[in-house]
Amino acid sequence: MKALVHVMLKPEVLDPQGKAIANACVSLGYDAVRGVRQGKLFEINLDVDEVERARTLVAEIGEKLLANSVIEDFEIVRLE
Amino acid sequence: MKALVHVMLKPEVLDPQGKAIANACVSLGYDAVRGVRQGKLFEINLDVDEVERARTLVAEIGEKLLANSVIEDFEIVRLE
Amino acid sequence: MKALVHVMLKPEVLDPQGKAIANACVSLGYDAVRGVRQGKLFEINLDVDEVERARTLVAEIGEKLLANSVIEDFEIVRLE
Amino acid sequence: MKALVHVMLKPEVLDPQGKAIANACVSLGYDAVRGVRQGKLFEINLDVDEVERARTLVAEIGEKLLANSVIEDFEIVRLE
Repeated sequence: MKALVHVMLKPEVLDPQGKAIANACVSLGYDAVRGVRQGKLFEINLDVDEVERARTLVAEIGEKLLANSVIEDFEIVRLE
Repeated sequence: MKALVHVMLKPEVLDPQGKAIANACVSLGYDAVRGVRQGKLFEINLDVDEVERARTLVAEIGEKLLANSVIEDFEIVRLE
Repeated sequence: MKALVHVMLKPEVLDPQGKAIANACVSLGYDAVRGVRQGKLFEINLDVDEVERARTLVAEIGEKLLANSVIEDFEIVRLE
Repeated sequence: MKALVHVMLKPEVLDPQGKAIANACVSLGYDAVRGVRQGKLFEINLDVDEVERARTLVAEIGEKLLANSVIEDFEIVRLE
């Protein structure tokens, strides 16, 4: 089973590098760009068959090793 | 319109930090973990209404500002 | 002139991925490792001759585009 | 003993996000900026007293867990 996890700074936490990319977009002529937020992506391969057990495992791993829950949001976006 | 973009090292490019996280999972008792790959995530807000125009814009931005196509794969995973 | 800038999570902000690397070190037998913190590094090339002007520029760029001063520390470690 | 490690994309490997930051600098009026390269920074705490043993350990950890030597350069910049 493969899990896809998103880790994103919480909306209220400033992301200056995302802002830099948004600025760069506009300066290159992509002025439809209103904002960019940068995050982290993890693809986790698991030797687990049951979706619910995989979800529990990935949630625990996310909390311990992938995201700082004070400043970041963690989301399992795919599990298959 | 909001686009979600994944940037991931190509499968043939070694990802030592992903490997470190996989190792850490196993050492914490999550021995069902077979591998971890790390990537980058971008959320782009666009002042564009048409999906196809948004897709074209985001693909251009990805190529110029987000991913190095020699070592990384770029994918628009959501557009809404 | 070239500036080297370190951006590091503040000491009181948890760094789960640094912790994952520390864990992985120990699990590979490097048990002298007590902790790992992960940060970002920027090398900035400037068309500026005076050190003090360069320092001022880089400090402004750091504040606006590189670091979130609420959670991160910013340091110019080299300027030459 | 504390080690500070820099991991930087090799000079011949394109760094689109560094380029985005350089673009953003110029678009904000910092037009003395000629280029930006982004890298990773690791601070490693070691329970080791001898500098040479620490250096050997950190070099091994760097190769196995921190940098992909095909695309990245690894440098121990401080050890104290």
